[in-house]
Amino acid sequence: MIATKAIENGAEYIASLRGRNLKVYFLGDRIAEPVDHPVIRPSINAVARTYDLAVEQPELATAWSSLSKRRVNRFLHVTESVEDVVSQNRMQRKLGQLTGTCFQRCVGMDAINSLFSVSFDMDAQHGTGYHSLFRDFIIRMQEANYVIGGAMTDPKGDRSKAPADQTDPDLFVRIVERRADGIVIRGAKMHQTGCLNSHWIVVMPTMRLREADRDYAVCAAIPVDDPGLTFIYGRQSCDTRALEGGEIDQGNAQFSGQEAMILIDDVFIPNHLVFMDGQTEYAAMLVERFTAYHRRSYVCKTGLGDVIIGAAALIADYNGVASASHIKDKLVEMAHLNETIYGAGIAASHESQPTPAGNYQPDDLLANVCKHNVTRFPYELARLAQDIAGGLVATLPSEKDFDNPETGPLLRKYLKGREGVSVEHRARVLRLIENMTLGRNAVGYLTESMHGAGSPQAQRIQIARQMNIEQKKELAKKLAGIRD
Amino acid sequence: MIATKAIENGAEYIASLRGRNLKVYFLGDRIAEPVDHPVIRPSINAVARTYDLAVEQPELATAWSSLSKRRVNRFLHVTESVEDVVSQNRMQRKLGQLTGTCFQRCVGMDAINSLFSVSFDMDAQHGTGYHSLFRDFIIRMQEANYVIGGAMTDPKGDRSKAPADQTDPDLFVRIVERRADGIVIRGAKMHQTGCLNSHWIVVMPTMRLREADRDYAVCAAIPVDDPGLTFIYGRQSCDTRALEGGEIDQGNAQFSGQEAMILIDDVFIPNHLVFMDGQTEYAAMLVERFTAYHRRSYVCKTGLGDVIIGAAALIADYNGVASASHIKDKLVEMAHLNETIYGAGIAASHESQPTPAGNYQPDDLLANVCKHNVTRFPYELARLAQDIAGGLVATLPSEKDFDNPETGPLLRKYLKGREGVSVEHRARVLRLIENMTLGRNAVGYLTESMHGAGSPQAQRIQIARQMNIEQKKELAKKLAGIRD
Amino acid sequence: MIATKAIENGAEYIASLRGRNLKVYFLGDRIAEPVDHPVIRPSINAVARTYDLAVEQPELATAWSSLSKRRVNRFLHVTESVEDVVSQNRMQRKLGQLTGTCFQRCVGMDAINSLFSVSFDMDAQHGTGYHSLFRDFIIRMQEANYVIGGAMTDPKGDRSKAPADQTDPDLFVRIVERRADGIVIRGAKMHQTGCLNSHWIVVMPTMRLREADRDYAVCAAIPVDDPGLTFIYGRQSCDTRALEGGEIDQGNAQFSGQEAMILIDDVFIPNHLVFMDGQTEYAAMLVERFTAYHRRSYVCKTGLGDVIIGAAALIADYNGVASASHIKDKLVEMAHLNETIYGAGIAASHESQPTPAGNYQPDDLLANVCKHNVTRFPYELARLAQDIAGGLVATLPSEKDFDNPETGPLLRKYLKGREGVSVEHRARVLRLIENMTLGRNAVGYLTESMHGAGSPQAQRIQIARQMNIEQKKELAKKLAGIRD
Amino acid sequence: MIATKAIENGAEYIASLRGRNLKVYFLGDRIAEPVDHPVIRPSINAVARTYDLAVEQPELATAWSSLSKRRVNRFLHVTESVEDVVSQNRMQRKLGQLTGTCFQRCVGMDAINSLFSVSFDMDAQHGTGYHSLFRDFIIRMQEANYVIGGAMTDPKGDRSKAPADQTDPDLFVRIVERRADGIVIRGAKMHQTGCLNSHWIVVMPTMRLREADRDYAVCAAIPVDDPGLTFIYGRQSCDTRALEGGEIDQGNAQFSGQEAMILIDDVFIPNHLVFMDGQTEYAAMLVERFTAYHRRSYVCKTGLGDVIIGAAALIADYNGVASASHIKDKLVEMAHLNETIYGAGIAASHESQPTPAGNYQPDDLLANVCKHNVTRFPYELARLAQDIAGGLVATLPSEKDFDNPETGPLLRKYLKGREGVSVEHRARVLRLIENMTLGRNAVGYLTESMHGAGSPQAQRIQIARQMNIEQKKELAKKLAGIRD
Repeated sequence: MIATKAIENGAEYIASLRGRNLKVYFLGDRIAEPVDHPVIRPSINAVARTYDLAVEQPELATAWSSLSKRRVNRFLHVTESVEDVVSQNRMQRKLGQLTGTCFQRCVGMDAINSLFSVSFDMDAQHGTGYHSLFRDFIIRMQEANYVIGGAMTDPKGDRSKAPADQTDPDLFVRIVERRADGIVIRGAKMHQTGCLNSHWIVVMPTMRLREADRDYAVCAAIPVDDPGLTFIYGRQSCDTRALEGGEIDQGNAQFSGQEAMILIDDVFIPNHLVFMDGQTEYAAMLVERFTAYHRRSYVCKTGLGDVIIGAAALIADYNGVASASHIKDKLVEMAHLNETIYGAGIAASHESQPTPAGNYQPDDLLANVCKHNVTRFPYELARLAQDIAGGLVATLPSEKDFDNPETGPLLRKYLKGREGVSVEHRARVLRLIENMTLGRNAVGYLTESMHGAGSPQAQRIQIARQMNIEQKKELAKKLAGIRD
Repeated sequence: MIATKAIENGAEYIASLRGRNLKVYFLGDRIAEPVDHPVIRPSINAVARTYDLAVEQPELATAWSSLSKRRVNRFLHVTESVEDVVSQNRMQRKLGQLTGTCFQRCVGMDAINSLFSVSFDMDAQHGTGYHSLFRDFIIRMQEANYVIGGAMTDPKGDRSKAPADQTDPDLFVRIVERRADGIVIRGAKMHQTGCLNSHWIVVMPTMRLREADRDYAVCAAIPVDDPGLTFIYGRQSCDTRALEGGEIDQGNAQFSGQEAMILIDDVFIPNHLVFMDGQTEYAAMLVERFTAYHRRSYVCKTGLGDVIIGAAALIADYNGVASASHIKDKLVEMAHLNETIYGAGIAASHESQPTPAGNYQPDDLLANVCKHNVTRFPYELARLAQDIAGGLVATLPSEKDFDNPETGPLLRKYLKGREGVSVEHRARVLRLIENMTLGRNAVGYLTESMHGAGSPQAQRIQIARQMNIEQKKELAKKLAGIRD
Repeated sequence: MIATKAIENGAEYIASLRGRNLKVYFLGDRIAEPVDHPVIRPSINAVARTYDLAVEQPELATAWSSLSKRRVNRFLHVTESVEDVVSQNRMQRKLGQLTGTCFQRCVGMDAINSLFSVSFDMDAQHGTGYHSLFRDFIIRMQEANYVIGGAMTDPKGDRSKAPADQTDPDLFVRIVERRADGIVIRGAKMHQTGCLNSHWIVVMPTMRLREADRDYAVCAAIPVDDPGLTFIYGRQSCDTRALEGGEIDQGNAQFSGQEAMILIDDVFIPNHLVFMDGQTEYAAMLVERFTAYHRRSYVCKTGLGDVIIGAAALIADYNGVASASHIKDKLVEMAHLNETIYGAGIAASHESQPTPAGNYQPDDLLANVCKHNVTRFPYELARLAQDIAGGLVATLPSEKDFDNPETGPLLRKYLKGREGVSVEHRARVLRLIENMTLGRNAVGYLTESMHGAGSPQAQRIQIARQMNIEQKKELAKKLAGIRD
Repeated sequence: MIATKAIENGAEYIASLRGRNLKVYFLGDRIAEPVDHPVIRPSINAVARTYDLAVEQPELATAWSSLSKRRVNRFLHVTESVEDVVSQNRMQRKLGQLTGTCFQRCVGMDAINSLFSVSFDMDAQHGTGYHSLFRDFIIRMQEANYVIGGAMTDPKGDRSKAPADQTDPDLFVRIVERRADGIVIRGAKMHQTGCLNSHWIVVMPTMRLREADRDYAVCAAIPVDDPGLTFIYGRQSCDTRALEGGEIDQGNAQFSGQEAMILIDDVFIPNHLVFMDGQTEYAAMLVERFTAYHRRSYVCKTGLGDVIIGAAALIADYNGVASASHIKDKLVEMAHLNETIYGAGIAASHESQPTPAGNYQPDDLLANVCKHNVTRFPYELARLAQDIAGGLVATLPSEKDFDNPETGPLLRKYLKGREGVSVEHRARVLRLIENMTLGRNAVGYLTESMHGAGSPQAQRIQIARQMNIEQKKELAKKLAGIRD
């Protein structure tokens, strides 16, 4: 994919996605033009919002890159300071607030930042040349202002077996052929956030590898419109409401997330786009650095949290119960939990350390703590939002019943709440709460909070590794007067 | 509605619902025959299951009634012993297990049991004749084996104002005319569970009333096919998947709950079907007795809990991680929380006391404690089920993509898990978990658990009333050596 | 120990403990007469309260025994009906309310009830004669109205090794000699509740045994004044405040619990007091039946919960903040958690089933659920009580500073709260809260709630066994449309 | 108090406290020399540790002050950068690890940092000269290397009344006389941490004041040995174990916290030590700035958390169960909660902003979130520590029973755990866990975590103020498509 000129805003970004002839399947059909598909479009809008924010608030959503010597979108920026890492979190929260969903670019941002330092370390030890190839790739991306998607999660097959031991060797992405000018890879990547809204994807291994898994130790960049790629779009709760015509029942008609399976059918990748080939011992390091970045990127969910707290406060207001002490107390609890997530996330960023490659790596322990809270607290915020909303959040008749001349007037008469509040406004905020707690963006706010960047147990394993239990035992021994 | 012969099973029940020419609206259209509507039918199936259970396990789902001198469906039975109250809970859990959703008959059961004793008390104090009219009504229902729906929740309008003080007097159901032979009522009832699957509904006041609210103090029975009734069907998350043709994506294709608004447009009710007219001081008593019954009826959710625990165990098994210690521990936690709900509920039933009317009333405090846990624990079970399920629960492609000849084979290749487990089975259990945590039956398992039988704060108010704080202070004083 | 006449009340009980010449050690000294020791006496008072309650409320605290054909103290009663099991819980809650501590007789009650049925089953299978010996023993106890202590927990040594595999074979109580007329046992029992306040103790195995552990499969009764027994009294937080002279700083000056180690130094037991000798396969059954009883016996802690809720309400009142919404809400939460424990416990009792021996055995799953909540909720009640109490609960000067002529007036001036509340009363309730959250009875309310009747993991293992996961998986399969 | 030379280490600090002839009362007696009192000494040791840390790790525990142009103890340092605020947290955690208790100097540090900026703002608005007087005072303190205690909490009397409206006007500290050369104050301060271990205390108002409360708007410095001060030492759980002779039963024999009441009996303060006199409108600002500092200072409890996690890991190890999955999982949970506190605290520090006076003020919202978690998580860590410890944590016989020739050998035989672990070591770690969960340092780890720096509701009020609910409502409106 060759850019003639850099993409400058959301509209140009959307235009850039057209006519790529991607093989995208959804609900059993191949989608002619994803950009125009009502179910897919909101996820494109969410990415477009990241371009527009860069225009509106360049200090927040862009940074000056010493690589390409220009201001670049922060999602394409390789961090050059602690403040750069912190600014990612501030931008993520803002975009969560603006879209109420997953805006899909963090995987790519976190992938390039981790591969930047890991490729450096590989070269340093093995004399490979990955790092400068990778820098060149990043510079091109920055110049064109492209979206990079990160692709990490393999299907994994039988989870008790390593990649090379699976009955079907394709259940982890692998190199099936090595040629002089490049490699051929095959496999699939699961749950890929924002992949078909990207211009390029960077493939990475998903876990610690053994020597025997050499063909699985591969990092490489692929243009999204490579004909060897097929995308099967994941269903989301209530996804087809976008096909019904109205906008109220969607809750958040403008924005949504996206997750798809990518099938990789023997795609050739030229050498200059290959950033790891066989260095199995770096797979775990890459995963750890990526997840340290990505787990504190879930600070984005505090932006969604701000929306759901606001929605809960709004419906309480519309219902005429905003001053009830239990309502106020629940809103405080929601804010407290939301900020607890934010605290650990931004602390991880503030505590970043430089890598040998020169970029900055967030604190691993705090990043895991942040994400682990994300697997718990959004569910509690959602529960409290439903509590405050009242039962109507799940029993409200459809938008079309409001439009029907028989039922519309009845609904407007009987669903009248506090004086001065329109029934439509009440319906809209109820649908937004439904959207984030049961509907389409509940996938992003809840399930993705659970499993994105690793499921809860993955964080617990990492916390166990980082918690320095032996030092803690020494502290206790000293105070207890135990001398070995 | 006159029964020629008693309904004997689920099939006859379904047949009995046909041709009633109900005014039912959904998605903007009047539904010609609800029985045949794919979105509505699963909710009818759930009620039908209650009839079939009565055939299969009569000791559990029927009882001998001294009113009609016959064995009757337990949902129509006025309790005659503590064991009768306890058996309701056992039947409720069983039906939750069999349907994975709300089977919609508890409101009616709890309504007749509370009105039975309250009508007795009204008569005793005021010399009214409600109780014998009500007994006659119940006997007729038992003879016909009809479904009775209870209708309590009014729209309420501005929640800071009492019924008679609302700008629009219709925002609580009220008597608009008193005639020699009966009354005429008007208003609406919200969130009515199973109403259009019923044959009769019993209207009741929704809260404590003042003397000035006399026209709102009304209890009466109405046949569901009364032409003055209009039903607007509430939307549920993912409801339209039932219109898509397949069955996998529905998660639970056979069963669902139902909530609708009932609009009551000047319906005449003859005197023999009126069981309260103006006795405002009994409104609170009725609500309290009803909620004592109904809040421990939420033991039904432990049946759904059994299903979601089973589904989580199944997907863990299919994913090949059933023996991981953290998985086993999460399943134990789910069971522990589920049984905690059950414990408080069935304890409330076991501690029932006879009323002056002779039926049995469950323990109010424990019933409220049961329901209050129901507003919390199912959300945690849902969270844990999503944790165990893995991200695929929210990113799985559609059933139709499995059927498509391009994508089907790819999905079957790459979604292969543990040896011996079919990809379709894996998809089915994932969709069931989606159904109960985000989809259609999440409405019943989560949101209805929150708000049905009263929102959390309603239980807290009742717990505050019942907790006997003064006696507890005396206990503390005695032990602290405080003598006033 | 031969009773000349039955003990009739608390005073006679206390008298019966005198002059037994027990070998009791505490704080490094042998205690001449435990009855008169200020630290030990409150634990004796707590047991005495069980006698007095039997006099005051015989319907609650006594039962007619078909064994000895008389009304007996309920703690000595072998259950003859479901209501008998339920009544134990009612009595336990009442005694928790009256004493604010562990009244120490449940272990014995639960031991005799489980050994009653297990001895019957052993005889049925093996033709041993334990059951009638055991009935004779119980009848004698009932006639004398004695206190029986149960002794189950062995030291266990290296927890990764079975009894017979320990380096020191005495780390589980064992038979060291078998004679014609009886057996000789040796070992120790840990954390024995109320042991030296008992007249007899019944020794039981602590866990599942293998064939090789045959000498450890022993049940037998020993009089507490057997010269082969030594008791080492466990320290409790703040225990020595009872030695300081005043009563306020103790918080609860009258009552406390008791846990001691019992050292068994080659004690001979005549055959008629031996109820198991070598039947290793019954050890696990005995433990399970005992814990089913004993885990729902922890309903006693809801009685302590009533006290701590009352104390929290009282201090809020004294501090002048009783009407603050957050205070009221916290009290409701405390009551809700307390009743949640009660619900599961009494449900386990209500769901009791008869054993082949004819007594009644509570529901195992619900009993474990009850206890598991006891390992959590009292800690949260304690936390909330400290929250409501204010910081003074941990910074209040001593009783003696109130008595000092220099500081007393200053304290009374500056610790004045709401008008009409004496500073002394405020101090007393603060000390009671300290007593139950940090002090002496925090051992009973918190730590014993954690570990008594088995630590949390023991309940989880039992819940896992009882949760019937396979049946739950079948429910899920059916609804998901999975046909194997 | 005039320093001849700066205090250089812990030993000199302890020496500096001698011979001050303070009026200190404890257990009804005036204490001749607090430095030598076994109950008080551990709290002095904890402060001494702050001096020694400054020697051992000057980069952590000292800072270069532009006020006194020298390196000063960090507790006396007015922050000059964000990193200075962050470094406080790092030092606090370290000292929590080293002492396992409250080291008592944060109140003073946070007081001087908040008064530094508030005095500046007062001068800027009113032309008062407080700021330069305050700088002079701080410089003197830095030169002498003194301990400053902060004194904020008044007795408050009837909490529904403002200071000037109390029946007894002394229930808040107030100016009773204004002279040409200074003021005279009277009243008391409650729960004063470390006060008699300080050289000076700074008195401050405790809450928002009205114009009518002018005499209560007073900030001033007083030497601790002013004869008008009386200290009544607060009792702590198990405090008198320090009088028993041994060290094991104390759990942590070397360190403890300290809280006392300070009675102020008409103390004269010369003008140069008065930093607020009547500026009622600054009382709330001072409290808010102080609590923003102080609530994130509770990061210290993560140092105690490290100790209790280490103690739990150690006892698991000694008990031979360190590899049990539930044990490992509980340790991870403890670490996760502990780091969650740390994350919010250090984030508040990292997000500090400069004040007009030039020092740095932490983020108010995150500081409150940090402290609010501190009111919850240490209780859960304590609960889990008791869970892991086993019942022996509350039933272990006394140290003296180990020394007794009769019982010592029995205890050593029967309390033997895993091979290679001495019984004494096992006892020591159990006593440390008791110390932190029930005993002396449970006051610091639990109750002080609850109420220090404001009780939970105080944080909720502040979170409500800071959560910016109106902006959140706008976010929700925008996404829901609501246009007013």
